[in-house]
Amino acid sequence: EVIITMSGAVNFKNCGSVLITGANRGLGLQMVESLASGGFSPGKIIGTTRNLTGAQKLQELVQKYSNVHIVTLDAVNQESIEKCVEEVGQLVKDEGLNCLINNAGINVVAELHSVTAEKMMENFHTNTVAPLMITKAFLPLLKRAASRGASRTMGIQRAAVINVSSLLGSVELNWGEGANTFRWYPYRASKSALNMVSRCLAIDLEPDGILCTAIHPGWVRTDMGGSEAPLSPEESIASVLSVISGLTEKEHGSFMSFTGEQLPW
Amino acid sequence: EVIITMSGAVNFKNCGSVLITGANRGLGLQMVESLASGGFSPGKIIGTTRNLTGAQKLQELVQKYSNVHIVTLDAVNQESIEKCVEEVGQLVKDEGLNCLINNAGINVVAELHSVTAEKMMENFHTNTVAPLMITKAFLPLLKRAASRGASRTMGIQRAAVINVSSLLGSVELNWGEGANTFRWYPYRASKSALNMVSRCLAIDLEPDGILCTAIHPGWVRTDMGGSEAPLSPEESIASVLSVISGLTEKEHGSFMSFTGEQLPW
Repeated sequence: EVIITMSGAVNFKNCGSVLITGANRGLGLQMVESLASGGFSPGKIIGTTRNLTGAQKLQELVQKYSNVHIVTLDAVNQESIEKCVEEVGQLVKDEGLNCLINNAGINVVAELHSVTAEKMMENFHTNTVAPLMITKAFLPLLKRAASRGASRTMGIQRAAVINVSSLLGSVELNWGEGANTFRWYPYRASKSALNMVSRCLAIDLEPDGILCTAIHPGWVRTDMGGSEAPLSPEESIASVLSVISGLTEKEHGSFMSFTGEQLPW
Repeated sequence: EVIITMSGAVNFKNCGSVLITGANRGLGLQMVESLASGGFSPGKIIGTTRNLTGAQKLQELVQKYSNVHIVTLDAVNQESIEKCVEEVGQLVKDEGLNCLINNAGINVVAELHSVTAEKMMENFHTNTVAPLMITKAFLPLLKRAASRGASRTMGIQRAAVINVSSLLGSVELNWGEGANTFRWYPYRASKSALNMVSRCLAIDLEPDGILCTAIHPGWVRTDMGGSEAPLSPEESIASVLSVISGLTEKEHGSFMSFTGEQLPW
């Protein structure tokens, strides 16, 4: 049984715009839905999807809520990333982008006996390299928001980059009991590397007032998490959004659980 | 100034065979030389190099010491890895391989402004994926050595995999003072991911009695480290070999400094 130790109110009303990658299904879709339907919704919610045909539910949310927008993005294609930034720039205009949530990720399942170089590289590309290149491309829009909100403290009310990581990316916790299950080399290594990228970004973006934090959303019943997972998408995302909306400079550069606790690297 | 807090005797006399990747220059070449010229040399020292033309100094060591051997290996080429394992198998025969040192690595220097997806992927391939695929390919030879030495405790006298990592791969230490220099995304992320791979391997190889440890060799005056580095290759490798020769189950699955101290992930 999962005990959620922190689950404050989700409050994005002071956040002008949020972009969520991989919003066509799973946790990304749930983030868009929870943000749109909540009492304190951000000004603009932009969900990205690789292609529109696989994003029926996201398109329904666009129809239902006036502040939900959809933009196509293939996270491992630089041209697509740049085109996405241009489209988002036209949506957010002078306000810039307040919150980028790098949620898109895959699990290229492979244990020692089945791991190949190709599987490792594929998972690094989507889970580690893509969030870095997407963040880099969105920097002008994030800096614009940070500079307009220069009088505000660090957080989503100014500008923030959230990297959806995983407990399985913690090298420290991959020992003893925690190591007995999920011996997935590509996924674990890609999330450890994402945690390093997140920490590097936190250092480099701090002078601009942009917060950067990695977050573990819990083990959730999605296509990726499978049916045995203890958390529903609604439960996970209620907690994740509560943690994100409460982030301050205290959590800048750290690795947070959806429960609000700090995790070891 | 660097203070080396631990530097016991280098003793490989109980180790039948050691293989060192990237032995044509830098730390790898120094490992071969220090092992060959030391009083307690292992039975066989096998140095690998991508091509023989770039390995003059290693070839000189082969001429000078009867226990030094050279085998070609392109670490990012699976066919080359498998051919290398075959050749090494013919060298070590029924004894198997006692100690694999994954030393080959590159630094694809890039800070936030210059980093690209290609630079990230290149560094992951050589520094993270190659050590994993090389270890996997050498498992039959490592298991053979471990099984022959079943009565011995864990360590190089039985069977061990040593991954040459870096302090720059520590996410924890990449903050405050430690973060002000070397803001290299590809290198740092590749070494964090290598630390995870190392930890995963430690878990998976433990039932076979094969030790696995990541090690930070210090900042050394090599082509990679540059001329400002505080340590000479001789100093670094004397300490590194001393740490490796003293490894026991206590250091299994951990991240060691050349000084003998444990490092945080």
